Amino acid sequence: MNTEIKQLLEALRQGQLSTEEVYLRLKMKPFEDVGYARVDLHRKLRQGAAEVIYGAGKTPKQLQGIVRSMKKNGEKRILITRLFEEGAEALKEAEGFTYYPEAKVGIIGDFPTPDGLGTIVVATGGTSDIPVAEEAALTAEILGNQVTRLYDVGVAGLHRTLAHLEELMSAKVVIAIAGMEGALASVIGGLVDCPVIAVPTSVGYGASFGGVSALLSMLNSCASGVSVVNIDNGFGAAYQASMINHISLV
Amino acid sequence: MNTEIKQLLEALRQGQLSTEEVYLRLKMKPFEDVGYARVDLHRKLRQGAAEVIYGAGKTPKQLQGIVRSMKKNGEKRILITRLFEEGAEALKEAEGFTYYPEAKVGIIGDFPTPDGLGTIVVATGGTSDIPVAEEAALTAEILGNQVTRLYDVGVAGLHRTLAHLEELMSAKVVIAIAGMEGALASVIGGLVDCPVIAVPTSVGYGASFGGVSALLSMLNSCASGVSVVNIDNGFGAAYQASMINHISLV
Amino acid sequence: MNTEIKQLLEALRQGQLSTEEVYLRLKMKPFEDVGYARVDLHRKLRQGAAEVIYGAGKTPKQLQGIVRSMKKNGEKRILITRLFEEGAEALKEAEGFTYYPEAKVGIIGDFPTPDGLGTIVVATGGTSDIPVAEEAALTAEILGNQVTRLYDVGVAGLHRTLAHLEELMSAKVVIAIAGMEGALASVIGGLVDCPVIAVPTSVGYGASFGGVSALLSMLNSCASGVSVVNIDNGFGAAYQASMINHISLV
Amino acid sequence: MNTEIKQLLEALRQGQLSTEEVYLRLKMKPFEDVGYARVDLHRKLRQGAAEVIYGAGKTPKQLQGIVRSMKKNGEKRILITRLFEEGAEALKEAEGFTYYPEAKVGIIGDFPTPDGLGTIVVATGGTSDIPVAEEAALTAEILGNQVTRLYDVGVAGLHRTLAHLEELMSAKVVIAIAGMEGALASVIGGLVDCPVIAVPTSVGYGASFGGVSALLSMLNSCASGVSVVNIDNGFGAAYQASMINHISLV
Amino acid sequence: MNTEIKQLLEALRQGQLSTEEVYLRLKMKPFEDVGYARVDLHRKLRQGAAEVIYGAGKTPKQLQGIVRSMKKNGEKRILITRLFEEGAEALKEAEGFTYYPEAKVGIIGDFPTPDGLGTIVVATGGTSDIPVAEEAALTAEILGNQVTRLYDVGVAGLHRTLAHLEELMSAKVVIAIAGMEGALASVIGGLVDCPVIAVPTSVGYGASFGGVSALLSMLNSCASGVSVVNIDNGFGAAYQASMINHISLV
Amino acid sequence: MNTEIKQLLEALRQGQLSTEEVYLRLKMKPFEDVGYARVDLHRKLRQGAAEVIYGAGKTPKQLQGIVRSMKKNGEKRILITRLFEEGAEALKEAEGFTYYPEAKVGIIGDFPTPDGLGTIVVATGGTSDIPVAEEAALTAEILGNQVTRLYDVGVAGLHRTLAHLEELMSAKVVIAIAGMEGALASVIGGLVDCPVIAVPTSVGYGASFGGVSALLSMLNSCASGVSVVNIDNGFGAAYQASMINHISLV
Amino acid sequence: MNTEIKQLLEALRQGQLSTEEVYLRLKMKPFEDVGYARVDLHRKLRQGAAEVIYGAGKTPKQLQGIVRSMKKNGEKRILITRLFEEGAEALKEAEGFTYYPEAKVGIIGDFPTPDGLGTIVVATGGTSDIPVAEEAALTAEILGNQVTRLYDVGVAGLHRTLAHLEELMSAKVVIAIAGMEGALASVIGGLVDCPVIAVPTSVGYGASFGGVSALLSMLNSCASGVSVVNIDNGFGAAYQASMINHISLV
Amino acid sequence: MNTEIKQLLEALRQGQLSTEEVYLRLKMKPFEDVGYARVDLHRKLRQGAAEVIYGAGKTPKQLQGIVRSMKKNGEKRILITRLFEEGAEALKEAEGFTYYPEAKVGIIGDFPTPDGLGTIVVATGGTSDIPVAEEAALTAEILGNQVTRLYDVGVAGLHRTLAHLEELMSAKVVIAIAGMEGALASVIGGLVDCPVIAVPTSVGYGASFGGVSALLSMLNSCASGVSVVNIDNGFGAAYQASMINHISLV
Repeated sequence: MNTEIKQLLEALRQGQLSTEEVYLRLKMKPFEDVGYARVDLHRKLRQGAAEVIYGAGKTPKQLQGIVRSMKKNGEKRILITRLFEEGAEALKEAEGFTYYPEAKVGIIGDFPTPDGLGTIVVATGGTSDIPVAEEAALTAEILGNQVTRLYDVGVAGLHRTLAHLEELMSAKVVIAIAGMEGALASVIGGLVDCPVIAVPTSVGYGASFGGVSALLSMLNSCASGVSVVNIDNGFGAAYQASMINHISLV
Repeated sequence: MNTEIKQLLEALRQGQLSTEEVYLRLKMKPFEDVGYARVDLHRKLRQGAAEVIYGAGKTPKQLQGIVRSMKKNGEKRILITRLFEEGAEALKEAEGFTYYPEAKVGIIGDFPTPDGLGTIVVATGGTSDIPVAEEAALTAEILGNQVTRLYDVGVAGLHRTLAHLEELMSAKVVIAIAGMEGALASVIGGLVDCPVIAVPTSVGYGASFGGVSALLSMLNSCASGVSVVNIDNGFGAAYQASMINHISLV
Repeated sequence: MNTEIKQLLEALRQGQLSTEEVYLRLKMKPFEDVGYARVDLHRKLRQGAAEVIYGAGKTPKQLQGIVRSMKKNGEKRILITRLFEEGAEALKEAEGFTYYPEAKVGIIGDFPTPDGLGTIVVATGGTSDIPVAEEAALTAEILGNQVTRLYDVGVAGLHRTLAHLEELMSAKVVIAIAGMEGALASVIGGLVDCPVIAVPTSVGYGASFGGVSALLSMLNSCASGVSVVNIDNGFGAAYQASMINHISLV
Repeated sequence: MNTEIKQLLEALRQGQLSTEEVYLRLKMKPFEDVGYARVDLHRKLRQGAAEVIYGAGKTPKQLQGIVRSMKKNGEKRILITRLFEEGAEALKEAEGFTYYPEAKVGIIGDFPTPDGLGTIVVATGGTSDIPVAEEAALTAEILGNQVTRLYDVGVAGLHRTLAHLEELMSAKVVIAIAGMEGALASVIGGLVDCPVIAVPTSVGYGASFGGVSALLSMLNSCASGVSVVNIDNGFGAAYQASMINHISLV
Repeated sequence: MNTEIKQLLEALRQGQLSTEEVYLRLKMKPFEDVGYARVDLHRKLRQGAAEVIYGAGKTPKQLQGIVRSMKKNGEKRILITRLFEEGAEALKEAEGFTYYPEAKVGIIGDFPTPDGLGTIVVATGGTSDIPVAEEAALTAEILGNQVTRLYDVGVAGLHRTLAHLEELMSAKVVIAIAGMEGALASVIGGLVDCPVIAVPTSVGYGASFGGVSALLSMLNSCASGVSVVNIDNGFGAAYQASMINHISLV
Repeated sequence: MNTEIKQLLEALRQGQLSTEEVYLRLKMKPFEDVGYARVDLHRKLRQGAAEVIYGAGKTPKQLQGIVRSMKKNGEKRILITRLFEEGAEALKEAEGFTYYPEAKVGIIGDFPTPDGLGTIVVATGGTSDIPVAEEAALTAEILGNQVTRLYDVGVAGLHRTLAHLEELMSAKVVIAIAGMEGALASVIGGLVDCPVIAVPTSVGYGASFGGVSALLSMLNSCASGVSVVNIDNGFGAAYQASMINHISLV
Repeated sequence: MNTEIKQLLEALRQGQLSTEEVYLRLKMKPFEDVGYARVDLHRKLRQGAAEVIYGAGKTPKQLQGIVRSMKKNGEKRILITRLFEEGAEALKEAEGFTYYPEAKVGIIGDFPTPDGLGTIVVATGGTSDIPVAEEAALTAEILGNQVTRLYDVGVAGLHRTLAHLEELMSAKVVIAIAGMEGALASVIGGLVDCPVIAVPTSVGYGASFGGVSALLSMLNSCASGVSVVNIDNGFGAAYQASMINHISLV
Repeated sequence: MNTEIKQLLEALRQGQLSTEEVYLRLKMKPFEDVGYARVDLHRKLRQGAAEVIYGAGKTPKQLQGIVRSMKKNGEKRILITRLFEEGAEALKEAEGFTYYPEAKVGIIGDFPTPDGLGTIVVATGGTSDIPVAEEAALTAEILGNQVTRLYDVGVAGLHRTLAHLEELMSAKVVIAIAGMEGALASVIGGLVDCPVIAVPTSVGYGASFGGVSALLSMLNSCASGVSVVNIDNGFGAAYQASMINHISLV
């Protein structure tokens, strides 16, 4: 697959390029030219998926610049996470831009037709976890996944969780989002046999310590098949879930 | 009820005691003599219940001394918690002594006939929590409670929990004991409508931090009606559960 | 008591409903229809008690919607905790609504006649703990309990605590609320022989760490019969206290 | 699929069973009988996979009992994690038992032919992480996965990591195991486009705090597609990796 | 008081020493020679008091060497804290040596006649705190203080504390030693009007975190006049208490 | 000294009061009437000193009410700590009121003539610690102490510390106030032979954790004679320092 | 070099000054007069370098005063760190003042010609780390160093880091600045053979804990030759880097 | 300098190697072959210096194997850190092996003649810090540095620190090693104008938290020019100090 390097070497062999030229090009090129082509692709998503911008800490001007440059490069779908009002305001002129204020997500372009293996369930313990859940759900959707939202199915009312066994059990991946004591991940992890990606949220007060209690709870889950991402990191969970749902079959 | 003080005052009024004598006796007596008689009783249990010794950090000799002195004072039932092998060895000669090595509990005297309002359920998430659970169960029994043990009913196998709904729902108090992520307390708290006393255990590894994860999880329980005691404190949970189960009806 | 299920089965037996209809209704209904009727009741309070809404993180509009729907369902008493100004403003039109700004509590409907076994004492260490205490006291009252408020009886002026021995000792449950070093729970726990539910508060500065010091202090209480709820969780303490005070005697 | 319930209802309709009998059977059965049959399967692995025993905290006798009972039930492959010398000694008589002392893993039965989609790479930062890695690798293998071991490829010698780009990039899942600063997960996460499951280890000293530094590092990974399990939890990572590698394609 | 420097300068002025000689001696001498004589005394105790050796981490041989050297220098009283069995064994030949195993304290020489302003009270919450208390008490005594020991007067049995009001109130300083929730310091601080030095101990389990809970509790004491030393630092508390009790009146 | 009780008893003996009347008065009175008169005095300062109000968390109205009531009771000097702008505004009409905005301290009445044994030095590591230092200095002054302020004498410029050896060494107590690494307490503790009360401040950023680093540093001081109060607690340090400086000589 | 002291002594010897005068001047002078001249210089930078003011917590007025006084003393270059808008506004009139708002740095005077041994590389993981990096870069420049800025070269896109190997490897010191998981320091530390000073930043969310995760990661770096400064302390890193780059060769 | 690659390319151009051969060799070689030659050297020390083995967690057999292989490769000097008794025993046969039990360091080969710019001072606060200091000193010496040991010069006896100003001030780098409150780094940092590398040690008890207090103290040092390494990491400090002392002058 490293055809480019081979071409370089071939051109050298045939005298079309000098040793110095080949040496320089081997050295000056981006890393992937030396045979690690996929390196450069590490943040690229599969064909048809969106490019991602982490909006937090970027000025409106910076955001405009990055979006403009991406569009010039032919990007059709762009996902901007942690995009606050001010930034959204600056991008509202961009063609095809939609802002989802609850999720603090901006999306440029239309959603692709889902092409994953199956459905990703995004479940939350309470209603206060919904902003994180929407970040996850929109991320999964823009990456080409079918998403089922199960919100406010926390374990304090276990029948609410159990009422959705059907959806939970037919999922390819479940993203379990909860604050406070974070027990949702363990209960779902005990019910399903697909991977569960747990997202602790900063919902709670007192000894919830901004999501630390939920985080620890999820890390210690007695259910097998549960892994965890950072507090409030709906995007990260959805990104990995999409990877799983789009696992290459070859 | 402060008849003693009244008698003192009356004796003064009648000239049987001098002002100085009464003053001195008011001052020198233990606190409870001044009308707060129950103060002295604060560690006493109801009629028929056991006296309690916290065994940890006491030498075999000290334990022997304390037990001897209690027996001389007429105590018939003595509960010794955190009693390690060495201490148990020292007490094995004491009449009526039984040692429960798993629970690290020693008991002198026989168990009383249960006289509480109903049953206390002691439930654990896993088998490793059983030593703490046995400390709780034996404490509750020596304090005169009917105890139902539900061990290894953790939420990772939710059907195990649900299989015992009957017992859980007919309890007067449930003691929910779990390590790792401690989700048992929330799930049970969401199922029953009696008080749940949660006991985090030090069972687990890594980010369980010796029970801290379970403790935080339980403190943040989204289920109402759950309170928490110290890590591994089976005794404390059972003591309060017994108080509730023996609540005075007048 | 599962009369509804029995009626369904009976209707099936008598040919009034088809097997499919009965199966569907068993399946579609909330969980309790399958024989776990009390499950659905887990957040319901006893007859005559209030329904509870956790106000934090709900928009004024959401609050209005929830209240409207509850009223439509015949709820006469609604307790809304953590209800901030804005939310209270939105509900002020609701019939029978009263707002308690200090406690951040809204109540719809009148207080029921107390029907518990006895009195719940709500005690605080200082005046700054009063908002948490009022959340507890109002919760207990709307749930049908007689409440005695003992505010600012902290242990730094021990005579203030001791001056109320009478009330403390005649309580069925004591809710001990304190920030800073949280010693109140231990001192009261050493004085009374009823359950003490300790509520650490975020009152303090520096090494109080937003209530963590008080929380740890209370978890380590050397007094038996003390359990703990989350920092500032006056509602949770009162809810459990009410459960104890309304313990079913059968 | 709830044919059993339907049969019950049908029997009622046809008068073969009384209403009471049907009601009782609906109520008394284990949970899964009511249509949630897969609940019971939550810890079962796919066809052909092994049953799992968590060995820590189980006595040799308990281990023998559990294994005997499983074998009686026809289990052919059993994986015992956290199995210490003493326990292994007790099981050495069991037919087909092999003990892997470094990984503290015992396996009964032979390894299945790998049937996953592709390869799981197990990579470690250093040689001290190998015990955790072996727990992961053996778990993955007994669950039917092809495993590639890349040990001691930590980022302090970046060329060591990069020398294995080929293997890393052709994996279906990478399990990145590292102690100390845990940077391996981020570097690998930035190189591959499959899911990375990060396992912090307790390797290190001083401010590594028994694996907490590596854990935090991994949770904060700036690379997308990384999720995390508990410190030293090689089993958990492999279990989820196997789920991903065996994702059902329908 | 800097007579030495003045003599140097005078000798220079009178031509007895050259400028260079004086300059050199000013520069080469130990720091205290330049007028800060007390610097060197900072670890010296008042006349008649003992020299202190911190025994932890010193080998038996090192201890023997230090003691021999001190004795050669005329020290009559030596206090060795944190002196474990092995070290005590090595010193038992030293003239006038006594070992206090509970307190892990060794003392060489006899106790001085108390010469402080009054009495130092050493109070503990429980019996397990006694080793720390004895370190404090012996330190105070060897430094020339009258000590009153009040052990096991913890607040869970408040009458035990109050029974000693007389002693507490007539103290010049109170050293309040407690583990677990450390409430003793606050309660005593609220009763007396002399300085209270609080010593948290590592007594406890679970969420006592090796004394951290008691430490935080004491730092947050709502009683004025309480300061705190390190966990288990009986020596430090007694050292400062002795300073206060020996405050110079000029 | 319990003349009041004696008078009561005498009146009873002489028939001027009935037994019931005396009993009632013994019971209804504040605690000190029963012989623990000093209890009530625990927050009272010596003759001539000020009464203290902790201003934080009190509304302007509450502050006005408390001050009015104290003045009615004859208090001439009142110290109000943690008094923010709004509260100060509400009290500015009070006779003799002065507000110290930097220290957030309000004082009613004039400063007393110092009557302690000697001088209290208030030293800070940097200029940012001055607000805490002024709280300490003003507290000490209103309690009747001579105060020497040594500000910005931190150890990073050791000559600044050493330049004040004279003042440090002639102090009766030193209050060492520092944020960041809090080394000032150790350095001063190593120089002087009077008690040092260390006050960590929340000055710093990053890993200073709001004063925790300084707090830990001070608790671990290798200098003897150092004790510590809560972060930013200038008042508490000065209060104890004043106790020491006013130690009763009988 | 202590010519001043020698002059004093000489003047004494020659009778130009009395013993008392010389004694007084030795004592009253700053510490360095007694032979520790460099002490006073500890915050002075090499010839030609800038004086430093830590702007945080200083009022605009204080800043003006300090700058005025420094200028009067002949300082030509002044670096003011943590200088917020308000303070910058107050200094804008000062001659030669420039404000760098992103870095929150103010500089008075022109930049010196670099005179260090080589180049200092300032590298950041992401764009959000740039403010800290600019504080470092400007500090290094005003102290006379050649600086190469390598921003946004984080390890999640390893080719970005590797693309700058040339610059990294020719540096005398590298300052590696990163938030989140802080892996940049380890990767760079593994690539270069000059000292790496790591600066954790508070960039991140959730379990980044305001920079603690990056801090711990850097402290545990498996690469040799890495040391760490406080979170966000760009100045401190640059100051030490400049020391290294200006190491005296004699 | 990439002569090897150039030779490869040249060989290709001249037809001595085929395109495939060159491509393969470019790909198969270690990373450094592609132009990043120094990459492989990252753990190599300057000419004449020692190779380093981290002994902790390596079995005696592994150690023997690694040493044998290194010797075969011509290494003359090998430094083995964290080498415990058992490992040292296994290596004692190796030619030129010396074991330093206090420092837990093994050295194979003789010490090189110091060739750095100047002296590295290794200073400790107390005697218990000496093992860490010896690890640092031996590391520095084997890497070719002149080392001055200043042990037990802690700030509680400031004159002890100041007595060594001469040595401190003439150092090229100071390694400041201290446990407990770690103030030594700040005091030295304030005295010298060369880089100070601070090493917190786990010496202490109670709130020293295994070195965390010293670590935080050092990170918050108010002295400029101080950076920090991991707790007890004497090796790391010496390694960086040696880098500084051997800074390349071109």
